[in-house]
Amino acid sequence: MGIVLGANEYGKAETRLVRVDREGDRHTLHDLNVSVALRGDLDGTHLTGDNATVLPTDSMKNTVYVFARRYGVGQIEDFGLRLARHFVDSQPSIGAARVSIEEYGWTRLGPHSFARDGGETRTAVLTYDGRESWAVGGLHGLVLLNSTDSEFWGYVKDEYTTLPETRERVLATAVAASWRFGTVPDDWADTNAGVRADLVEAFVETYSRSLQQTLYQMGRRVLENRPEVVEVRLSLPNRHHLLVDLAPFGQDNPNEVFVAADRPYGLIEGTVLRDDAPPAGLAWW
Amino acid sequence: MGIVLGANEYGKAETRLVRVDREGDRHTLHDLNVSVALRGDLDGTHLTGDNATVLPTDSMKNTVYVFARRYGVGQIEDFGLRLARHFVDSQPSIGAARVSIEEYGWTRLGPHSFARDGGETRTAVLTYDGRESWAVGGLHGLVLLNSTDSEFWGYVKDEYTTLPETRERVLATAVAASWRFGTVPDDWADTNAGVRADLVEAFVETYSRSLQQTLYQMGRRVLENRPEVVEVRLSLPNRHHLLVDLAPFGQDNPNEVFVAADRPYGLIEGTVLRDDAPPAGLAWW
Amino acid sequence: MGIVLGANEYGKAETRLVRVDREGDRHTLHDLNVSVALRGDLDGTHLTGDNATVLPTDSMKNTVYVFARRYGVGQIEDFGLRLARHFVDSQPSIGAARVSIEEYGWTRLGPHSFARDGGETRTAVLTYDGRESWAVGGLHGLVLLNSTDSEFWGYVKDEYTTLPETRERVLATAVAASWRFGTVPDDWADTNAGVRADLVEAFVETYSRSLQQTLYQMGRRVLENRPEVVEVRLSLPNRHHLLVDLAPFGQDNPNEVFVAADRPYGLIEGTVLRDDAPPAGLAWW
Amino acid sequence: MGIVLGANEYGKAETRLVRVDREGDRHTLHDLNVSVALRGDLDGTHLTGDNATVLPTDSMKNTVYVFARRYGVGQIEDFGLRLARHFVDSQPSIGAARVSIEEYGWTRLGPHSFARDGGETRTAVLTYDGRESWAVGGLHGLVLLNSTDSEFWGYVKDEYTTLPETRERVLATAVAASWRFGTVPDDWADTNAGVRADLVEAFVETYSRSLQQTLYQMGRRVLENRPEVVEVRLSLPNRHHLLVDLAPFGQDNPNEVFVAADRPYGLIEGTVLRDDAPPAGLAWW
Repeated sequence: MGIVLGANEYGKAETRLVRVDREGDRHTLHDLNVSVALRGDLDGTHLTGDNATVLPTDSMKNTVYVFARRYGVGQIEDFGLRLARHFVDSQPSIGAARVSIEEYGWTRLGPHSFARDGGETRTAVLTYDGRESWAVGGLHGLVLLNSTDSEFWGYVKDEYTTLPETRERVLATAVAASWRFGTVPDDWADTNAGVRADLVEAFVETYSRSLQQTLYQMGRRVLENRPEVVEVRLSLPNRHHLLVDLAPFGQDNPNEVFVAADRPYGLIEGTVLRDDAPPAGLAWW
Repeated sequence: MGIVLGANEYGKAETRLVRVDREGDRHTLHDLNVSVALRGDLDGTHLTGDNATVLPTDSMKNTVYVFARRYGVGQIEDFGLRLARHFVDSQPSIGAARVSIEEYGWTRLGPHSFARDGGETRTAVLTYDGRESWAVGGLHGLVLLNSTDSEFWGYVKDEYTTLPETRERVLATAVAASWRFGTVPDDWADTNAGVRADLVEAFVETYSRSLQQTLYQMGRRVLENRPEVVEVRLSLPNRHHLLVDLAPFGQDNPNEVFVAADRPYGLIEGTVLRDDAPPAGLAWW
Repeated sequence: MGIVLGANEYGKAETRLVRVDREGDRHTLHDLNVSVALRGDLDGTHLTGDNATVLPTDSMKNTVYVFARRYGVGQIEDFGLRLARHFVDSQPSIGAARVSIEEYGWTRLGPHSFARDGGETRTAVLTYDGRESWAVGGLHGLVLLNSTDSEFWGYVKDEYTTLPETRERVLATAVAASWRFGTVPDDWADTNAGVRADLVEAFVETYSRSLQQTLYQMGRRVLENRPEVVEVRLSLPNRHHLLVDLAPFGQDNPNEVFVAADRPYGLIEGTVLRDDAPPAGLAWW
Repeated sequence: MGIVLGANEYGKAETRLVRVDREGDRHTLHDLNVSVALRGDLDGTHLTGDNATVLPTDSMKNTVYVFARRYGVGQIEDFGLRLARHFVDSQPSIGAARVSIEEYGWTRLGPHSFARDGGETRTAVLTYDGRESWAVGGLHGLVLLNSTDSEFWGYVKDEYTTLPETRERVLATAVAASWRFGTVPDDWADTNAGVRADLVEAFVETYSRSLQQTLYQMGRRVLENRPEVVEVRLSLPNRHHLLVDLAPFGQDNPNEVFVAADRPYGLIEGTVLRDDAPPAGLAWW
């Protein structure tokens, strides 16, 4: 019997970068949170503290800033992939790199003035192993609600079931979605905006008998409309809106007054994909 | 020498209420976080545990839900004032009530579908003492940024000052604002939307030599445009965007690449008001 | 009618400082979050952007670090007061300074190893106006629970009251406390530890008929035991532990199984003070 | 080409349970956050909204509370495994269940009084697939710091490296650890306390040339001392403590005054395991 080092990785997390592009008086803003993770021949540093194959995480941070100046940010998938390639191609000991980016949106108020969009965050994860690269787009914090067209009934009733069946409920969730690309789209931003629209429209248009049904329709809609996407992963908390019992006060409550509950919440997670999707490789790392 | 009970209050905080108004197929959503605080003759419960003058905080919660059903929510100032009046007028032992409301905005996606607006929150604080009432509108989480037209120089240099003067910097802040009403406006929502627009426009249009200067202009703009508002309080964190030194890498950085720093941050707080503003009374409780 | 600048202040918030004292091989740690706020003649910067009376907040941050090196941190009340005095005494335009400090505790694991204490935070607020100084000690995040010896009955029942009276409930709260000093104690740490012990013991030992009663006893206990403290302010959320109704499952629930609810919560706030306490002046700013 | 449903699961997350055990006057407290996830034949609900195989997440919540009353909580591994077995054994459509538990510690203050331990949280993940079960213990939020005995040098220097080598630095991290059991220990609590002690002692006693080296020693120490544990996974953020440059103020800084930085941070993640560890199966789900 022996004790061995298993899977491991390291990197710099949450490098906050704001890039202002100045074309004359009209500025553009990129507001990113960049995390880098590397895998490779890292036995030395773990086993003996020999750092000969370790690029300092501080250097990764510097690289993010230098690349932002040298190449601009542009679309975060391009920016992330450039970084991932750089680390693998320049470090012999590094076998694979993953660059995860959160992008915070800003609404233009003027030529050089902006208001930050709240809540929703765009994400991208770019992975490269020296030969192949993978791209996963995503978003989180998109909170959606349908105030009708949602039912829940016909479920298992065991001895611990007290939930009444309903043909009318509020359905609300905070969408966290990731979508794997099979091919590089013509325009990342265009595709990603399209995916977001698909997700929203499917949520809105699905007459729902379960959040799982809505989840599947959301993933399906993306795959139907976006040939470049081969897999969609969704994590949907069921943000319960509990009907308040007003009978003690002599009032009915015809689906009007709800408690927005914090916890507990249902959590529905699922994958929708093409049956001929290529292997995921390191896409999900 | 004796030990005495000083100022005190109690109430139910953070009652989460979602009200769906159903007019045929087209629904409207009110999403609130309601906190109630009461003052009055509460010596008994503090000194001896005699609760004869204590309305349970659970009853306050119930009242919020019942009133939402009975009267609807409408504008949060009306809803809050109705609640504040109710507690004082129905409880002989209660001398004053404050109802603080956060409202979370939702963007319509369809007749009964919505996406929650992130980040920014509307607030209202309604206070009533049995004779007089006060209304304070507000917002927080409005993050604004100017990528130019901001300078900072001519300041005190003491022995601990190393900050270089600058004629060009990024100015960013998360606005927390409260505005006291001198009179009841024709339409609360209309006025509050106008105040928000004034704050944003003043931020955008002010060529700034200090965040204090911007703060003052924001408050002034509101008072100039909104006769019903008599006082504006602003709390503006200076969200520093630090220029990255790229010289070690042989690059300049002409105000393009910044670190968005978390901490520490400057914190600028100030009040702008009319010189004939009526006394604030319990407005700020 | 005119528009005027009202009360205002500015400063550097949340400067994170860790000070390692090395006496031979045995180290000591001070882990602080320091916020500075200044008031004074600041009309220029607000009204015209003239910063001639503005000490940059960056210089305040530097001062915190320099003072930590030069004088050590020692007890945070001494450290904070030294800083407050410095800003007022060295800047003619500044009339008053407030230094607010959070201290995070660490438990010693070895001569130079430590584990951070979670949850609870010590605080101190030191204020100086050029002539007089004020000290307020405090803590927050101290979560206490009694699993019995708590009742709640005999309260007002209005038409919205459904809460059943109880002679047996769980009482839990997260204590946020501040205590104003009338005189400088021999040893700040000693007094503050004593106040904490008083608060905890009074919570534990009070047979409670309301959280207000417990609050008063907590404040009273401090004032009885600590002559140097003249006023105690307490903010006590009532962290409801709701008895789960297990009757649908054929089980009783003799005060054994509870839901720890997030929201809403009761919020009980009160002051206990000496009837001969000196005026608070700027103690509470 | 077709679109298909891939991996999916659902359950109730974050059911907050407080269990008071009353043995005469001396009470014991269990404070848990329980999350259940189920996998199985869930095509119907996803594809057509047919919920015939769906046990409502509300029933899972009820089961948690009923089991807490009926069996007590005891050790969370036993409690979690009992729940996992129940869901799989009672629901023909469910193939596997995972019960994840966070336990919040409380320090006894008296026979029925407690103070909540802050920061650190114990975790357990119990998985069952109808034939086999897996147990993973864990903790997170354990913040450790060595103020010396940490170096970092001999690393790769690329064109973006500016970090100076050091033979003396502060090393701090917030430990998130999970350990997989190969066999059921005699006493879960005893083993878990032992693992925690091993992690802490290895952190304290390792003279560190990289956080990776410390990570490996932490995992190794556990495996050496705990035959029932076969694999340890560690996620260690490097909480940078940056030495403040006091030279502009004419002062040196002999490793005394540091900025505790929020972001970015290094993130070191690794697994240490026995070379004869049995397959992980669903242990990590």
